[in-house]
This record gives sequence, structure tokens and C-alpha cells, in this order.
Amino acid sequence: MSGWWTQACREPDALIEHQALARQAQLTKPAGSLGQLETLAVQLAALQGRETPSADRIAITVFAADHGVATRGVSAFPQTVTQQMIANFAGGGAAISVLARALDARLEVVDVGSINPGAVPAGVVDARIAAGTADLSRGPAMTAAQLAQALDAGRASVARAGQVDLFIAGDMGIANTTVATALACALLGAAPRELVGPGTGLDAAGVSRKAEVIAEALALHAAHLHDPESVLARLGGYEIAAIAGSYLACAQAGIAVLVDGFIAGSAALAAIHLNPAVRPWLIFAHRSAEPGHARMLAAMNAAPLIDLGLRLGEASGAAVAVPLLRLACALHKGMATFASAGVAGKHAC
Amino acid sequence: MSGWWTQACREPDALIEHQALARQAQLTKPAGSLGQLETLAVQLAALQGRETPSADRIAITVFAADHGVATRGVSAFPQTVTQQMIANFAGGGAAISVLARALDARLEVVDVGSINPGAVPAGVVDARIAAGTADLSRGPAMTAAQLAQALDAGRASVARAGQVDLFIAGDMGIANTTVATALACALLGAAPRELVGPGTGLDAAGVSRKAEVIAEALALHAAHLHDPESVLARLGGYEIAAIAGSYLACAQAGIAVLVDGFIAGSAALAAIHLNPAVRPWLIFAHRSAEPGHARMLAAMNAAPLIDLGLRLGEASGAAVAVPLLRLACALHKGMATFASAGVAGKHAC
Repeated sequence: MSGWWTQACREPDALIEHQALARQAQLTKPAGSLGQLETLAVQLAALQGRETPSADRIAITVFAADHGVATRGVSAFPQTVTQQMIANFAGGGAAISVLARALDARLEVVDVGSINPGAVPAGVVDARIAAGTADLSRGPAMTAAQLAQALDAGRASVARAGQVDLFIAGDMGIANTTVATALACALLGAAPRELVGPGTGLDAAGVSRKAEVIAEALALHAAHLHDPESVLARLGGYEIAAIAGSYLACAQAGIAVLVDGFIAGSAALAAIHLNPAVRPWLIFAHRSAEPGHARMLAAMNAAPLIDLGLRLGEASGAAVAVPLLRLACALHKGMATFASAGVAGKHAC
Repeated sequence: MSGWWTQACREPDALIEHQALARQAQLTKPAGSLGQLETLAVQLAALQGRETPSADRIAITVFAADHGVATRGVSAFPQTVTQQMIANFAGGGAAISVLARALDARLEVVDVGSINPGAVPAGVVDARIAAGTADLSRGPAMTAAQLAQALDAGRASVARAGQVDLFIAGDMGIANTTVATALACALLGAAPRELVGPGTGLDAAGVSRKAEVIAEALALHAAHLHDPESVLARLGGYEIAAIAGSYLACAQAGIAVLVDGFIAGSAALAAIHLNPAVRPWLIFAHRSAEPGHARMLAAMNAAPLIDLGLRLGEASGAAVAVPLLRLACALHKGMATFASAGVAGKHAC
């Protein structure tokens, strides 16, 4: 199976990157003293193809879906919370709703497969593939056709976002840390007990049960995990596949991506396995409190910007990191040079 | 010697803290899932005495001064850069100038003792105590009267700032990582080689020379380092003492402080030694790339918000962390509760 997601991605602009680096060296500060803010500005310049990049126009999409594996008791919250939170996103009361307003960002909510049998709330995009995935511990979570639909849903959201400086994807889906952990185990060759964590708040017994369910799933599908499409179809979720699809579409369109935490991280990992050329387009926002995230980030050679013990998902960690990108761009654009300010440089020492 | 700085500080409001904690528990997210953003909102509520705190009105003061020890060759930059950078702050081209504009913050620049023999640039507060401190490796950096002047200069800037949600102090002064390291060694009982670092960009030989100069100073003053006033007068700098004074004045006035990096950290350490009741008013913004900062932070039991390899000073690290406080406040105030949004809580598990 292959599709649009395996096609070529854009390449960052090496000439602009060089120019942006040269600009940084002239600004009135000791070389390197703005640390990751300098590399961030240079990276964004290369991705946006302009010497003074910006992070003003932000599109955030939260993809929501349910997971058959929730029936195995792997979450601290009941499955109905997925659709209740979709309504909360649309109603403006969720963390990401508040953050999007504070950042003046476009927020889109896409239901790619909640168990809600009725109409989606006003303001929510209805892209439901099915009423949740099948239970991945008893069979494939989705079919190949459903996987393609989910990847397409991600691409469609990027298309609706239009011209933006930065795209952010978030997740909502009760039981989705189980799914993300299963995916990461399969893609990284790790054991469930190495990556499993409490998610929204499981106790120790709950975490053990979750690890057992993931181990069952990995054993069940072991003979069919040789290509990333199969891994994502058998062990994934609609919202995770949609996030992966959005990242791949961004890389193909030349749009920089700010990656959220653990769930989005599993989608990034899957996207990189589907098409490694997506990697340069991914900026990693934060290190989640979910313990498996560290291993996932290391595998992607990612140096996240913040580490504040966040573990909410919804794109909230990425949203919180947006002002760092904005300030990095402001410094890169607005600081005086040694020459223009009449400031002496470093001693020849 | 004692003065206004040893008088009582305000106490955080324990009742409001309790109310803010209760509010956090009702918001539509798993308990604790916003990590440090939750504790930050609760801490700010207790400091500001209101259940929904804010970080809108920000005052930033950069205190600048020169240091006699610069003649010992402990910096990668010539001493004239201090006054050139004062002009750059006032002219709007320095990093903190750009950040203050981006944050819509009040920026004040106070010359507490540069070697500039002429008039200070327009827009800069002239509070010059002397043309730099004396060389601390050959005698006391300042007299007790000069120390009091510097502490007063910090207090005066806080008074000029008026009603603000948050006060930030920054530094400029060639050779001031040498001074801050000497202070920290004396206050923490550490050896120079444990805390010394490259500052603005010394090479390995330069760092060794810097450690030797600090060791000379500590040996010279060893018999006179029994009280924090003497430590600060003998081993300090005008801008560092002014920053310490500003923190103490904030704590007495009930104003929350966001502490910048290594230089500001040494001022915070000195302030805590002068008056331990200042500590609850200090929120630590970032972990500097300067190696001694980690030890300093640990001694103050500080958990900084960001760690981006910054080492510029000027209050730049604190300014970069401001949006995190703003978003923490926005989430605390703006999120829906489980009851208002009709979202189910955690399973009894």
C-alpha cells in the first residue's frame, strides 16, 4: 500500500539558512548567547524560505476519535468524555480553546471517529470514519481504506488552513496513550513496560493492565508489522493517523510544523516511518510527563523547547511553546547589529 | 550594618492559594495535566492576592554598571561595551529592547555606575554611584555606603514602576559573571573552579584565569565574609546589589518577581541571605547555560521554567518566560469546569 503520503516533501532552503545564520552573527549579543532561540529562528527561516521568519499566523487542528481498546479498561476516564470534550473545544472552554484565543490562532476541531451517534456539535468538522476503531488487542484497529481516509482527513485540514506560518495538530481520544504506546513499541522495537505510563491518571495496577493489553496486541499482530502502513492500520487510531497525515501534507506543502506531546509524537514517528523526508519540517514543542515520550523524542533526534510536566494533549503543549517561536522571530528581525549600534565586538582572544 | 532591606516582607495569601488550588481541580483536564503551569497560576494567585492572577502589566529594569575586576582580563569583551550597550538598550536595538516591545512591557534602564564620564543617553536613569567598582581582587569592590546606594537604586526603580503584576530585573556589566561567581562562591561555600564558566565567551585559558582571579579575591577577603552585607560590598557589583535591592523592595511591597539567569540569580542569592523572607516572591524564569547556575538554583530550591541554553543576561531569559506566565493565567481564568461543560470526571479507580 502506498499513497500521496509517500510522495516527495519540500526541502528547507539552504541558502536562506546560511543568510539567517550570518544575520544572527551580527546581532548585538555574544555569539550563541540566545541558545535555542537562535537555532529556532534559523530553522524557521530555512523552512519558510525567508531570512526573517515569523510565527504570527498559526493554525491549530484538534483531531478527535474513539478507540475500541477503551473497553479493556486502559483509561482513567470513561469513553463518553471524548465527545463531551469535542463539545467543550467547540464551546471554548477547553485548554486548547483558551490557548488558541490567547495566541490569536485559528482553531479547527475535526471528529474523525468518535462514538457519538448523533450530529457533531456546531463548528466541528464531521469527518467520522467509523464509531471508533476496533479493539487493537483483538484485531486490526482499522482497515487499509480507513487508514487512507484518516490520512486524507489530516491533509484536508491542512488545505483548509491555507497560508500559515506554522501548523499545529492536537489529539483527543480516550485510551489514546495506549494506542500511541503500542505504535511506538512496534516502530521502535521496544517492550510495553519500557514505554507505558499513566496517561490521564491510571494507578500502578492500571498501568500494569495497560502494558498487558499492549503486549497482547503486539503478539497478535506480530507477523504483520513489516511496513509502517500496516503498523498504523493495525495499532493506530483515526486521530493519530490524521495527525500523521497533516504532518506529511505540511512537509509536501512547505509548512513548518510544531509537534505537541506524546500522542502527536507517536504520529510524528509514524509519519517519519511513512516518509522520512517529513522530519526537517517538524519542530518539537515539549517533553511530555508521559514517561515513554523521552524514548520517542530520542529516536527522532528531537530537542523539545519546553519541559513543564505537561500531559494534556489537545495540542496544548505546542500552543504553550508558540510564544517562544514568536519571540525568537522578533529577536532575529528586530535586534540591532554591532555595526548599526556602534557596539564593539569580542576581543581577539 | 542593617537597613530597610532587613525589614519584614509581605506574606503570600494562603487562603487565596487554597481557593486557586480548588479552582484548578475543577477545570476540564486530568488533575495535574498542565504541570508547572498549574502550580505557577496558583503561586501567582497567592502572591497577587487574587484567585485569578494576571501577568499583563510587566515592569523590566536593566541595571548597568562597570567592574574594576574587568582590568584583570576576565571577559571576552572590552569594558567600553557596557556603555555602548546602555545606549543600545535606550535606542531599542538590544535583545531586551525587542522583547520588551513584543511583550508590551515597561522598560527602564538605570546606570548605577558605568565608567562613562559624560552624560547618560536620553531615556536612561542616571543613578551612577561611581565610575565602576574597585577591583575586588585587590580590595573591597565598594564601601558600605555605596552598597546602600546600590540597594536604594533598586528600590527606587520598583517605586517608579508603580502598580505592576510582575517585576523583572536585568543586568549589563562587562566582567559581571566574575563578580556573580565570586559572590556565589562566598555565599555557598564553593570553590571557584566548581562555579566558574565562560561568561560571554572565554576560552579554556580565560576560564582558568578567571577562576584564579576569583580565588585571589576570596583569599583576600576571607576574614571579612561573615555577614551578607560585607560579602556583597566586598565581592559584589553595583548592578547586582541594585537587583538584590529591587527584589527585596518587591517582597516588601507584595510584588511578584520573575528572576532572570546567572547574574540575577547571584543577586537573588544575596537577597535571600540579606532577608530570607524575600524567597516566596521569586519565580525563577530559566536555567542559564553558565555552568554555575545549576548549583545556585539548587541552593535556592528553584525549579526554573525554561532551559534553552540562554546566557545573555539583560533580563532576556525572564522576558522570554513571560508568555508562559500569561498563558498559565489565561488557562486558570478561562477554562470551563467539569460541571459547566458537562464533562464526566475520572473513574473511581
